[in-house]
Amino acid sequence: MSRPLVVALPGDEELAAHLAAELHADIADTEIRSFPDEETYLRIDSPVSGRAVAVVASLARPNSRTLPTLLLASTLRDLSPASLGLITPYLAYMRQDARFRPGEGITSRYFGALISNHFDWLVTVDPHLHRVDTLEGTYTIPHTLVSSAEPIARWISEEIHRPLLVGPDEESAQWIAPIATAGGFPTVILEKERTGDFDVQVSELSAAEIPADDLTALTPILIDDIISTGRTMIEAIKALNAAGLAPPTCLGIHGLFVDDARKALRDAGAARIVTCNTIDDPTNAIDLWPAIASATAPFL
Amino acid sequence: MSRPLVVALPGDEELAAHLAAELHADIADTEIRSFPDEETYLRIDSPVSGRAVAVVASLARPNSRTLPTLLLASTLRDLSPASLGLITPYLAYMRQDARFRPGEGITSRYFGALISNHFDWLVTVDPHLHRVDTLEGTYTIPHTLVSSAEPIARWISEEIHRPLLVGPDEESAQWIAPIATAGGFPTVILEKERTGDFDVQVSELSAAEIPADDLTALTPILIDDIISTGRTMIEAIKALNAAGLAPPTCLGIHGLFVDDARKALRDAGAARIVTCNTIDDPTNAIDLWPAIASATAPFL
Repeated sequence: MSRPLVVALPGDEELAAHLAAELHADIADTEIRSFPDEETYLRIDSPVSGRAVAVVASLARPNSRTLPTLLLASTLRDLSPASLGLITPYLAYMRQDARFRPGEGITSRYFGALISNHFDWLVTVDPHLHRVDTLEGTYTIPHTLVSSAEPIARWISEEIHRPLLVGPDEESAQWIAPIATAGGFPTVILEKERTGDFDVQVSELSAAEIPADDLTALTPILIDDIISTGRTMIEAIKALNAAGLAPPTCLGIHGLFVDDARKALRDAGAARIVTCNTIDDPTNAIDLWPAIASATAPFL
Repeated sequence: MSRPLVVALPGDEELAAHLAAELHADIADTEIRSFPDEETYLRIDSPVSGRAVAVVASLARPNSRTLPTLLLASTLRDLSPASLGLITPYLAYMRQDARFRPGEGITSRYFGALISNHFDWLVTVDPHLHRVDTLEGTYTIPHTLVSSAEPIARWISEEIHRPLLVGPDEESAQWIAPIATAGGFPTVILEKERTGDFDVQVSELSAAEIPADDLTALTPILIDDIISTGRTMIEAIKALNAAGLAPPTCLGIHGLFVDDARKALRDAGAARIVTCNTIDDPTNAIDLWPAIASATAPFL
């Protein structure tokens, strides 16, 4: 039986190399480049026929990278692999999974259908699920969702003295609960009102929720699944400041950091900003690549 | 029976308005915008159910605009139109329609399958066909290919005194022949060797092909279907210069103008650069929108 093959979209060579090494797979020789008019040229220079193939494609900025990813899938499919899967550490288009106003596109479902039509399986990390707690119905292919909870809990235990996990809004509770369980950390969840893409209000921290004389002794860690504009965390930082807590560490599973989000967080008083390495960023501190490799192994 | 509906991807509002006016159709009210993280939000605020719908989407820079186009198609499809077509004046991904080296992706076919899976019909202008002279097999949906030949021939007759049509390479012959026929213009086709994306050699113009005393009296018009880097035309301009002809007008059906292509053409001695309005550009001089409207009418 021939060794599995890992194929990187340009920019994902490092994760692909890591996975290939852990999974005893080969890295595909490829020529993937842009023509002067920005169309993508693709050529696979490794044997594909009969092999289990895993494509590694970061789609955190999905609009320009999804078409090349689908073209890469079709190129590989033409070469008769035994199976063809996608590893994308941050799953894009999970925001709009329902029609909140008439006429809205349910982009989560459409994007899921495109991926499901081109690949046989999917591995991703902590997708932004809300209202539903599964990708079933959105992704019709077998998929494994890597959980960042244990690696994050380990990191917190090693790096933070007397941590207090703080969720900036109700939705963050689903990400924080398993981290709190894994590490045995105390937790508080703030309340948020969102009025627009950039307008976020976080309620004042109710000191009553935590024993008052403990508060100043704890090190707050704000945790959310995605840090995008950073506005949610900035409002939470203000609430923590007002409650007299120490400057918090801001921890995102996925760090998108739109515009000047990092700087805005630091200006607002973040003591430190850390993320998992699902989206390449200077703040990457928590390594999920081994967990991604473990989740991928059964598909190869 | 309700009026047809024309839906513009952002940037294509002007063509959509023109088509709606000519076709007695309504322009859809839409909200199509980017989230801060660059994902696309779509909402259709016009009735769609039971109506013939035409999406207008320019895909000359396809990688970032194709996913929003497909998401727009899925959004509309969910709203139960009677039919759903695509008007894209420049058809992208027509370059790679065969496997020239082992392992190459036949992107023309994959892109055609994506479009065919999302739309019921297609209208485009003079696609870059080579080796095959039809979209059958690539596009499995009904399609109408608008020809630019007569509008271009009219423009030449009105603007150029004693024109000589010049094809910069053999492949251009298929675009020039119908223009020459429509206008009764003399024609010469140069020979080109292409060694890489940016390296083009054009053979010297053989004066023997044209009555010698006519040459300097004619106004050369270089014609190609696509002006991309401009390198092909620049080499052709040199060949015409060497043959003692007047500075040529450079005419492209589709003007992609990669990087500094316009400036490079002018520096090389182009007297004028003109294109059809299939790709929005300052060089647009030949109006194909009425022809696009006529080709669309039978689908609505």
